[in-house]
Amino acid sequence: MNNEKIKELTKWMKSNGTDLAYITDPNTVAYFTGFASDPHERILALFFAVDKDPFLFTPALDAQAAKESPWKYDVIGYQDSQDPWKMIAEEIRRRYGEPSDITIEKASLSLDHFEAFAQYFPKTDFSKNLTPVIEQMQLYKTPDEINTLIEAGSWADVAFDIGFSAIKEGATEAEIIAEIEYQLKRKGVAKMSFDTEVLAGAKAANPHGAPGEDLIQKNHFVLFDLGVIWKGYCSDATRTVAFKEPTKFQRDIYEIVLEAQLTAQEAVKPGVKASELDRIARGVIEKYGYGEAFNHRLGHGIGTTIHEYPSLVAGNDLVLEEGMCFSIEPGIYLPGQVGVRIEDCVYVTKDGCQPFTKTPKELQIIE
Amino acid sequence: MNNEKIKELTKWMKSNGTDLAYITDPNTVAYFTGFASDPHERILALFFAVDKDPFLFTPALDAQAAKESPWKYDVIGYQDSQDPWKMIAEEIRRRYGEPSDITIEKASLSLDHFEAFAQYFPKTDFSKNLTPVIEQMQLYKTPDEINTLIEAGSWADVAFDIGFSAIKEGATEAEIIAEIEYQLKRKGVAKMSFDTEVLAGAKAANPHGAPGEDLIQKNHFVLFDLGVIWKGYCSDATRTVAFKEPTKFQRDIYEIVLEAQLTAQEAVKPGVKASELDRIARGVIEKYGYGEAFNHRLGHGIGTTIHEYPSLVAGNDLVLEEGMCFSIEPGIYLPGQVGVRIEDCVYVTKDGCQPFTKTPKELQIIE
Repeated sequence: MNNEKIKELTKWMKSNGTDLAYITDPNTVAYFTGFASDPHERILALFFAVDKDPFLFTPALDAQAAKESPWKYDVIGYQDSQDPWKMIAEEIRRRYGEPSDITIEKASLSLDHFEAFAQYFPKTDFSKNLTPVIEQMQLYKTPDEINTLIEAGSWADVAFDIGFSAIKEGATEAEIIAEIEYQLKRKGVAKMSFDTEVLAGAKAANPHGAPGEDLIQKNHFVLFDLGVIWKGYCSDATRTVAFKEPTKFQRDIYEIVLEAQLTAQEAVKPGVKASELDRIARGVIEKYGYGEAFNHRLGHGIGTTIHEYPSLVAGNDLVLEEGMCFSIEPGIYLPGQVGVRIEDCVYVTKDGCQPFTKTPKELQIIE
Repeated sequence: MNNEKIKELTKWMKSNGTDLAYITDPNTVAYFTGFASDPHERILALFFAVDKDPFLFTPALDAQAAKESPWKYDVIGYQDSQDPWKMIAEEIRRRYGEPSDITIEKASLSLDHFEAFAQYFPKTDFSKNLTPVIEQMQLYKTPDEINTLIEAGSWADVAFDIGFSAIKEGATEAEIIAEIEYQLKRKGVAKMSFDTEVLAGAKAANPHGAPGEDLIQKNHFVLFDLGVIWKGYCSDATRTVAFKEPTKFQRDIYEIVLEAQLTAQEAVKPGVKASELDRIARGVIEKYGYGEAFNHRLGHGIGTTIHEYPSLVAGNDLVLEEGMCFSIEPGIYLPGQVGVRIEDCVYVTKDGCQPFTKTPKELQIIE
């Protein structure tokens, strides 16, 4: 249970004059309560009021687990045969009286759930959006959160080790993915943070390409993009390695991406704008004439999810501060020829940054 | 691309006097277009109009893949630096003029996306909900869909084979899960339909229990709940097997669950109500005095998702018809003692049903 963040939220509620906050995103619920759960089509809801105790509402099947979780306030379970919205409305009125407004997470509340809930509060104002408030909070990671992210990152290093060792002539991308996830699962890492990508040769030139049955061949670059979920926090890292001696052209492309990655990473410190980092990395790649081939933003925030704030993209003038965590992942994708991406996630320190992943970024040649 | 279902949708639109249908759920997009894609935080949208060609709107990164997919109509891509909502609104007006109403999928459209979209259509009526229309359509599977579900089911049989072979004294649940997914991935099954569950001993008495580090021990029951995604369609099946000779009590509980499962499965045919099947299975378990220990509904629909219509639950008087597909999964969970669940998904035929999974349901004893 994150007492510090709960205080921060109720402080925001007070100063914005809102009676009640309704948390709908299971990730946000886990962030405040320490209770991680996917309710699927059932209802999971967390309510915070100013100066009164909050409560957590869950499917009956999950109520016991919620009670045994770090969450120290009330847990109310509902059966499949009960109407959750009616129960929630009664619970709110019993505890807090008639709310004049309820702030909601607009990014995670579906329209049908909103209508089912709001019908019980015809006089309540639902215009305030909690999503940007939560995003702003999650932008700054506490030392505990950073420690967990470091652990998650070191599992990505283990994954690279396994993956590099599995490279051999004629192996398929799918076989290498299977090997990585198999060994991680046996070591106790239950879940990847997204579908592991292993892309051989020209396939890596499509950054959204589906992993599949392509064979690893000599002189191929092999791109690994992977991460794990560890104690609720994600890692995400990319390495591109050569299988046997690469061509001069492959090496040249690799060195450009590496220069872009390192230059941007070295430029990170409090006070720099998110857009500036994108500009720095893009500038390196443009200098060599490959600007068009770097067709996505430089990076994204990371924490309990793999895509959060800050976004390192042109136009985002957010000023970086200590405790922010994000990816730095430039790439060059030349369809039919070669694809290279190098990615570390980092956390901003007092005067620079530290990466969560330590696997060397100099070109590795697998023999 | 599913022409038959597209016709069915536009027919519904005509007879309900709606100008435009906006599809937001990536699963529904895949259902109509044959283009499967997870847009994450980006925008994927599909628009159908009466008597005019539809169009698909995707992130620029995915546009090429969409054009190469079975979808034969227009694909419009947008860059990260563009406003997708403005582009969509312009495209709609250009193609179809000013819409008097737009029917939306309320279960999958988040409130912030709805507000971002609706601001461009201040005079348009958004009250109609497409979700139940799509749910109703997906309730009936075509022969092609059933064939794919049969293939997905046979992969679940392969998974059971692998899992049963991996049972040995001292193995952890996580190791067995790792083995199943490893071997399936090597055979070309890229994705499970949900997190594989392997639960040893009393742990199986918690149907939502997390798979973990418990050891397989002699005289344990081991519960496997698993499924794959195959060509966009899911399988989902459960078997409980004994490791070495079970006790008389374990056998008794197993036989009750088996009787409940078989009795309900034999009762399936067109004309029977969903609630009746739940009642039949529950009746068997109650007859032996374990009604309280069967604490969930009998089953759920299956197709492109693992939880859809019909729901086999008390109170749902939907009459079953040919082509409906759902799970039949009674269980008895006695905390601290034993947990047994047996599940097949089936499709309704002219005069009965056929299961998608063929792994025997008589108690298997692993030596």
